[in-house]
Amino acid sequence: MTDFLRPDFSKNSKYFPALTKPMLPDDTFKGKIAFITGGGTGLGKNMALTLSKLGAQVFIISRKENVLRTTAEEINLITNNKVAYYPADIRMPDQIEKSIDHCIQTLGGLPSLIVNNAAGNFISPTERLSPNAVKTIVDIVLLGTLNTTLALGKRLIKEGQGAAFLNIITSYAETGSGFVVPSACAKAGVVAMTKSLASEWSKYGMRFNGISPGPIYTEGAFSRLDPTGTFVENIKNKIPIGRLGEKEELSNLACYLLSDFSNWLTGQVIDFDGGELTFSSGEFNGLYSVSKDEWDQMEQMIRKTNSKL
Amino acid sequence: MTDFLRPDFSKNSKYFPALTKPMLPDDTFKGKIAFITGGGTGLGKNMALTLSKLGAQVFIISRKENVLRTTAEEINLITNNKVAYYPADIRMPDQIEKSIDHCIQTLGGLPSLIVNNAAGNFISPTERLSPNAVKTIVDIVLLGTLNTTLALGKRLIKEGQGAAFLNIITSYAETGSGFVVPSACAKAGVVAMTKSLASEWSKYGMRFNGISPGPIYTEGAFSRLDPTGTFVENIKNKIPIGRLGEKEELSNLACYLLSDFSNWLTGQVIDFDGGELTFSSGEFNGLYSVSKDEWDQMEQMIRKTNSKL
Amino acid sequence: MTDFLRPDFSKNSKYFPALTKPMLPDDTFKGKIAFITGGGTGLGKNMALTLSKLGAQVFIISRKENVLRTTAEEINLITNNKVAYYPADIRMPDQIEKSIDHCIQTLGGLPSLIVNNAAGNFISPTERLSPNAVKTIVDIVLLGTLNTTLALGKRLIKEGQGAAFLNIITSYAETGSGFVVPSACAKAGVVAMTKSLASEWSKYGMRFNGISPGPIYTEGAFSRLDPTGTFVENIKNKIPIGRLGEKEELSNLACYLLSDFSNWLTGQVIDFDGGELTFSSGEFNGLYSVSKDEWDQMEQMIRKTNSKL
Amino acid sequence: MTDFLRPDFSKNSKYFPALTKPMLPDDTFKGKIAFITGGGTGLGKNMALTLSKLGAQVFIISRKENVLRTTAEEINLITNNKVAYYPADIRMPDQIEKSIDHCIQTLGGLPSLIVNNAAGNFISPTERLSPNAVKTIVDIVLLGTLNTTLALGKRLIKEGQGAAFLNIITSYAETGSGFVVPSACAKAGVVAMTKSLASEWSKYGMRFNGISPGPIYTEGAFSRLDPTGTFVENIKNKIPIGRLGEKEELSNLACYLLSDFSNWLTGQVIDFDGGELTFSSGEFNGLYSVSKDEWDQMEQMIRKTNSKL
Repeated sequence: MTDFLRPDFSKNSKYFPALTKPMLPDDTFKGKIAFITGGGTGLGKNMALTLSKLGAQVFIISRKENVLRTTAEEINLITNNKVAYYPADIRMPDQIEKSIDHCIQTLGGLPSLIVNNAAGNFISPTERLSPNAVKTIVDIVLLGTLNTTLALGKRLIKEGQGAAFLNIITSYAETGSGFVVPSACAKAGVVAMTKSLASEWSKYGMRFNGISPGPIYTEGAFSRLDPTGTFVENIKNKIPIGRLGEKEELSNLACYLLSDFSNWLTGQVIDFDGGELTFSSGEFNGLYSVSKDEWDQMEQMIRKTNSKL
Repeated sequence: MTDFLRPDFSKNSKYFPALTKPMLPDDTFKGKIAFITGGGTGLGKNMALTLSKLGAQVFIISRKENVLRTTAEEINLITNNKVAYYPADIRMPDQIEKSIDHCIQTLGGLPSLIVNNAAGNFISPTERLSPNAVKTIVDIVLLGTLNTTLALGKRLIKEGQGAAFLNIITSYAETGSGFVVPSACAKAGVVAMTKSLASEWSKYGMRFNGISPGPIYTEGAFSRLDPTGTFVENIKNKIPIGRLGEKEELSNLACYLLSDFSNWLTGQVIDFDGGELTFSSGEFNGLYSVSKDEWDQMEQMIRKTNSKL
Repeated sequence: MTDFLRPDFSKNSKYFPALTKPMLPDDTFKGKIAFITGGGTGLGKNMALTLSKLGAQVFIISRKENVLRTTAEEINLITNNKVAYYPADIRMPDQIEKSIDHCIQTLGGLPSLIVNNAAGNFISPTERLSPNAVKTIVDIVLLGTLNTTLALGKRLIKEGQGAAFLNIITSYAETGSGFVVPSACAKAGVVAMTKSLASEWSKYGMRFNGISPGPIYTEGAFSRLDPTGTFVENIKNKIPIGRLGEKEELSNLACYLLSDFSNWLTGQVIDFDGGELTFSSGEFNGLYSVSKDEWDQMEQMIRKTNSKL
Repeated sequence: MTDFLRPDFSKNSKYFPALTKPMLPDDTFKGKIAFITGGGTGLGKNMALTLSKLGAQVFIISRKENVLRTTAEEINLITNNKVAYYPADIRMPDQIEKSIDHCIQTLGGLPSLIVNNAAGNFISPTERLSPNAVKTIVDIVLLGTLNTTLALGKRLIKEGQGAAFLNIITSYAETGSGFVVPSACAKAGVVAMTKSLASEWSKYGMRFNGISPGPIYTEGAFSRLDPTGTFVENIKNKIPIGRLGEKEELSNLACYLLSDFSNWLTGQVIDFDGGELTFSSGEFNGLYSVSKDEWDQMEQMIRKTNSKL
């Protein structure tokens, strides 16, 4: 009999190849400064690279100076556009202030493209977490994002300069999820911030949008977590598009949301997840794996029956 | 290794016994008339019974007169309160008008408690449905509910009489679901109607709320669909509360939403589903089945790793 | 001409009187212990009172010992059931531990009914807030709720005892709102916690639900904020039910969600707000105030026109 | 005193100019066929034009042959790419079949880019609608969309050809709204269809996404409804971005969702509305209009007060 719980999405990916070249016109961000937290690695690094390719001067922050330096040099080599950085812990308001000062000194102004991307997470049963572990995640993910947004926002308001903010969230922020509770709570807070400031700070020329990415392939994350590759194999079974997302696909969406092409879009959070959440939440989607023959057999029986009458 | 996809909820049910006696005070609905579509069987019948137990005069409609008659007599025998009925197809506005006329004749007035419960469904791959099959479901579920609500609403407005409406929806209305597409679309429409009229018709003293039930045990539905009981066993694996819902539990929530105790509540749809939707939609809930020993092993590895950084 | 932006809901309230007597059977919570944060005043106090009336032994915590003492005595005088208390700041895990110890000592066990109700808020343009002000609200509302839930949860798991948790949230948690951003973010986090643990901790016999109350009349809150009563008048213009909620109405819903009658309900957050959110979010609800005569005039013009074609 | 209910967004628009040139690379849709219902006027026409500019062969249907012909010629003159059309009422499955036949005959194949854009609406108090008026809107908007999708889907499945579907919905579909109830219900059904088939038909290489547009300027719609321009003025007061949307902005988002750049995105509905819904739904957003001086006065009073304690 069919295994209702293990849909086979592997054949789907042939229909949905990843288009990884930059989508927007070459000079989209010319003359603009981008500020990216967690910009040294993974998705943040790729967004930084893509923004730079499209003409932006890029400023990246994270806690690790050597990672920042390497990434900045790497991007600059490819794009020939300025990339600056500052090591900062976004839990510390004064470190954020210093990084903004450094952005102004090195790139000549405040950013008008801001990506709140830094995050942290523990995958653990909640009862195994100490109050301190919970606090660490909430402080990085929620307070850190609020701190960054508040510090940049206050300065932008003072200068009368608008900006587009993009918050990188996570697909379980709006549904909740066990085993990542502090992250789910903190990221849900970032969703609320996105919607709240989209309204409140529209008067200062600021837009706020978010992307909630599902599983996207990045070298670091998966090799550390999943040396044998079985976890990735498992995840693919949850994604109707039949493959993991590519970081360049995320960057293209991110750049759209940061660009003037989306100037009429604010307060939105887009689940960018290959259909994972939609599939898992639909009650009868488990029937995906039923074969044609099985449907033929069931048809007579089921068709005339009203369920949930 | 753990099977991430088959959580074992069977032990949970011991914590969450079903409380099936009526919850509200005995005379809650004394002097009130209730109107229930699809009231001859299943959940509709049990809501009718419970409303009658709590003092309401009950009017039930569906397409099958003999079923209505039997149910009416059965309820009246138990509660000693009047139960009337009329055979009607809610797709036909004139049949609804006649049933309302009959309600007034037999019970002496318009109802102030209205339950839109009648529905229909096909479980099928969408591409196997004819345009006519799709239309049948949309007509019963969405147009039928609109017809009933419109006909009763117009009369209530004319008489200056308020009412509490309760719409029985389904847990996949707000998420969507494959293999029940016409029903998902039509029920989503009923959600929109619930919210829309909660606002618009508040001026006429009408409240609108909804319940989206997950799998609730009723004799008819399951014995027909699942003679061997394996389907029920399968469904239990999706419900954190560890058991199917009981129709009396639904009726207690329904009666609350229809009673004056909830007079400040309108425009709400409650997922009443044993946690099914919340569980299935949370990305990391698949880790539910990981054992204590496995967590011990994983802890060292995972704890220091940030995912989705 | 009609003022589209000022609907007159004042006549609606006559249809929707508040039913303030306890809804559930007298002995619903007999033999059970309830634990309520922020239980000394306002909504928390009334939930404590109602739980006590229905048989529960009640334990209340907040930061103000004298308020707790007065409330405990007041409730005990009315219900004759035990009420104990402990002064604690829920931002401090050790103070929560001590309060749980005290609950066990005074009432003989761990609670099985838990209400996360304590909160804090600033109404302010976000750019006027210091990082410290933001942190204060996030720490009280989100970390405080996580701390309380984690501390009680760990002990309940150890004892193999189930529990029903009820989180008091706020109507802007899921929509976001300007001018209350730290609270919106933190409360959104509590929504995520509600859904996440409903799934994860179902294995330990715990249910989690939430209520997002709209404006409910409590002595304290409104007299301080609104000595002249004009604010209350203004709020009424946003509530289709035509009046503020009564705390006893909230308590009745709260008691349902804590009782075994709702044992099949978990992971749900109910907007209890007189229809405020539903009304304000519907794009064309501003037409509520158009008079019959005006509709007569418009009918010919509008009827034949497709909007948003 | 400040008018809380009339925010002044007029100054905001200077920050958010509309970027109306095509966003995607010139040859994005080269070799592809697009099928657009309601493609003769308004938003549908502009999407058709933009798809054609980006290389697609375009097929448009609606009920009015002369409008279709004019539009087809107009687009072809600009882009030099083939535009074909067929007059069809999407309520009639056989007319849809004929239009697909005609698409194959004129453009050489089945479409792989499909835009469900045709719609209809009455703005009216619900109690003034006849059952037939309700049925008309549900039939056009929901059944028509289902008919189109079903007919095209069945043929695509038979041919083993994938496709990207884009459904144009409306901002009140997920919130509900009074005075447009049949449309709200039907469009909510289209949301459910979008999510449902994103899961179910992923196996056939089909993606489904939606856009829920807020008020976007099109010649037809506004001049008919609003000859004096006061309605447009009124609407602007609800849009934080400070202006109506431009159809080219919608087309750019539409083209992204139809292109391979979004191949990892399915089951999403994006509110494209200048922040209207987010603003109107946030409880305290009414404070937007409070002036700096007023905040200075209130600050002392409010800051130390916890609301909703």
